[in-house]
Amino acid sequence: MILAGIEEYLKKIQPLIDREIEKVFPRKITKKWLEYALDKADFAYDEETMTKSAAEPIWELLDRGGKRLRPALAMLACEAVGGKKELALKIAPIVEIIHNGTLIEDDAEDCSETRRGKKCTHLLYGLDVAINDGAAMYFIPLTLLYKNPYKLKKKQISKIYDLYAQEMIRVSMGQAIDIWWHRGNKTEISEEEYLQMCVYKTGVLTRFSAKLGAILGNANEKQEKALGKFGETIGVAFQIQDDVLNLVGEEFQKGKGIGEDIHEGKRTIMVLHALKNSGQADGNRLIEILNSHPTEQAVINEAIGIIKKNGSIEYAKEKAKTLVKNAWKKLSPVLKESNAKKTLKEFADYLIERKI
Amino acid sequence: MILAGIEEYLKKIQPLIDREIEKVFPRKITKKWLEYALDKADFAYDEETMTKSAAEPIWELLDRGGKRLRPALAMLACEAVGGKKELALKIAPIVEIIHNGTLIEDDAEDCSETRRGKKCTHLLYGLDVAINDGAAMYFIPLTLLYKNPYKLKKKQISKIYDLYAQEMIRVSMGQAIDIWWHRGNKTEISEEEYLQMCVYKTGVLTRFSAKLGAILGNANEKQEKALGKFGETIGVAFQIQDDVLNLVGEEFQKGKGIGEDIHEGKRTIMVLHALKNSGQADGNRLIEILNSHPTEQAVINEAIGIIKKNGSIEYAKEKAKTLVKNAWKKLSPVLKESNAKKTLKEFADYLIERKI
Repeated sequence: MILAGIEEYLKKIQPLIDREIEKVFPRKITKKWLEYALDKADFAYDEETMTKSAAEPIWELLDRGGKRLRPALAMLACEAVGGKKELALKIAPIVEIIHNGTLIEDDAEDCSETRRGKKCTHLLYGLDVAINDGAAMYFIPLTLLYKNPYKLKKKQISKIYDLYAQEMIRVSMGQAIDIWWHRGNKTEISEEEYLQMCVYKTGVLTRFSAKLGAILGNANEKQEKALGKFGETIGVAFQIQDDVLNLVGEEFQKGKGIGEDIHEGKRTIMVLHALKNSGQADGNRLIEILNSHPTEQAVINEAIGIIKKNGSIEYAKEKAKTLVKNAWKKLSPVLKESNAKKTLKEFADYLIERKI
Repeated sequence: MILAGIEEYLKKIQPLIDREIEKVFPRKITKKWLEYALDKADFAYDEETMTKSAAEPIWELLDRGGKRLRPALAMLACEAVGGKKELALKIAPIVEIIHNGTLIEDDAEDCSETRRGKKCTHLLYGLDVAINDGAAMYFIPLTLLYKNPYKLKKKQISKIYDLYAQEMIRVSMGQAIDIWWHRGNKTEISEEEYLQMCVYKTGVLTRFSAKLGAILGNANEKQEKALGKFGETIGVAFQIQDDVLNLVGEEFQKGKGIGEDIHEGKRTIMVLHALKNSGQADGNRLIEILNSHPTEQAVINEAIGIIKKNGSIEYAKEKAKTLVKNAWKKLSPVLKESNAKKTLKEFADYLIERKI
């Protein structure tokens, strides 16, 4: 019931968000947009090339869909502190465009093949275009701040810039850790270290979204902090659930092979749990498989078997639930009862219950 | 004389700038720095991995040197409007770290082999680390704004953020155009379009630097604008000179092969001029060579021969001089006479006269 309700909600706001994204970054780069965002040309703009080299690849990814979870979270957070969700809707492209930028960059870095059932951007448009466009997406939505078309208060803009700056460093550090661990460079990773990496890699943009909504809704300090923490936690829980689904979910039907994380050698919370709780033989074998970056389904299944045998999938699911429960306990008392608050809770539950 | 004077000046401030960069981003990532820049960990930091995966590759590039032209420009601009160069020195790591980030990204995108006489970052540390660290360098120096250790005024911080946001979009768009053109996707590029691409690709960070200095020196609006334009122009002139040196300079002795731009198929101002002024046979041959991305020195030399025959190298040098001369004409009247003003002029002359 909850799942269906939230999915309905997300479906409803998705086209609204997409319309706002298009206002921020048009599908076709025009002289008008360039003069608005970047001032008049000193010499002459080549808007056709910018359309081909930036707008088309970026929109090709944006048009693949995705749940627009982060804008939805920003809107809910804004409403839950008594702000106007319409304003959050207009500013939320910041988090969604950045999020999609990280997908392009991560895929290029990991030499991934598919994203949302289609070839990754670097395979469609070349690595050079992908790297550049992914990074461009970190900056393009900042027009919402420096052009300030929706008349945000100076204080709000300054808070959003500060938030942006810190979160972007966090994202970079999270990815730096993830890359290094994938390579098998660290033999013992603690669960605490793993969760911190998740905070940075996946928790950052949900934290950013929730805090963005809080700032736009003029939240008090306590609310902003608790919403940030809640956003971060559901991001981490989302990541854990993502990792679970990667091994046992239905995603593979949508174009992503099952066990991709095993192939990439990812040290997920399930891997760490299995290593800690299995016998030495199983543990060594699991590490051996991860470090060999296997492509054979039988070998990948063997790794998944070791993980399952040790109850690590159940453990991960439980962990995600506990994290969200605890964050909610801290957030709930600082928010007045409202529909938005109720939906926020359902939203969190949805992220850890979802099947795809 | 001027060359020697400025080179002396740059050499003197280089170690000072490097010290400031190290304050912003330490060579070894510590818990202390992490808690300062990113707040306390929710779980547990893995500072050793972050050092290996981010600090070491980033410092490996920073330690290769480079002229630190952009911080020098920021300091001169600040002083020229009556500000304190000591403050500009402390904030200038923003432009230098970002500049080095663009080098890592550009090299990864172009599959370049060497940078400052050594293997490119993506070849030393892997593409994943390079892409991620290059982007990280766009954000790391923002700690200078959101932590505000040097007590900048709110108004200054807000102006620097706005400046940053716009310039970073410009850099991305400049690179987007450059990539597309390299591929030979556009048959006719006008000189005006080429110069605009240079404004974005090379002029942006010098513009950023000059404007940063102006903001830190509390420049008036006219000064800030004129300094921005001057910074941009010397960036463009610097790029033209760079392109000239790439074909006829001494750089190859330092590890970069001569005519690398021919190999990359770059449409430089010299190429455009040669295409416009040569007969059809030469023009077609030049395009053929550029589109073939040649590696044979004889073929590269043939292209350089066509360019030389048409006086295109002299033309480019003249163009660079005229651009700088005109920008100086607009800047000079809004600055009081001072040593900094004099050095600023010498600095511009140096950039277009330099031999390496």
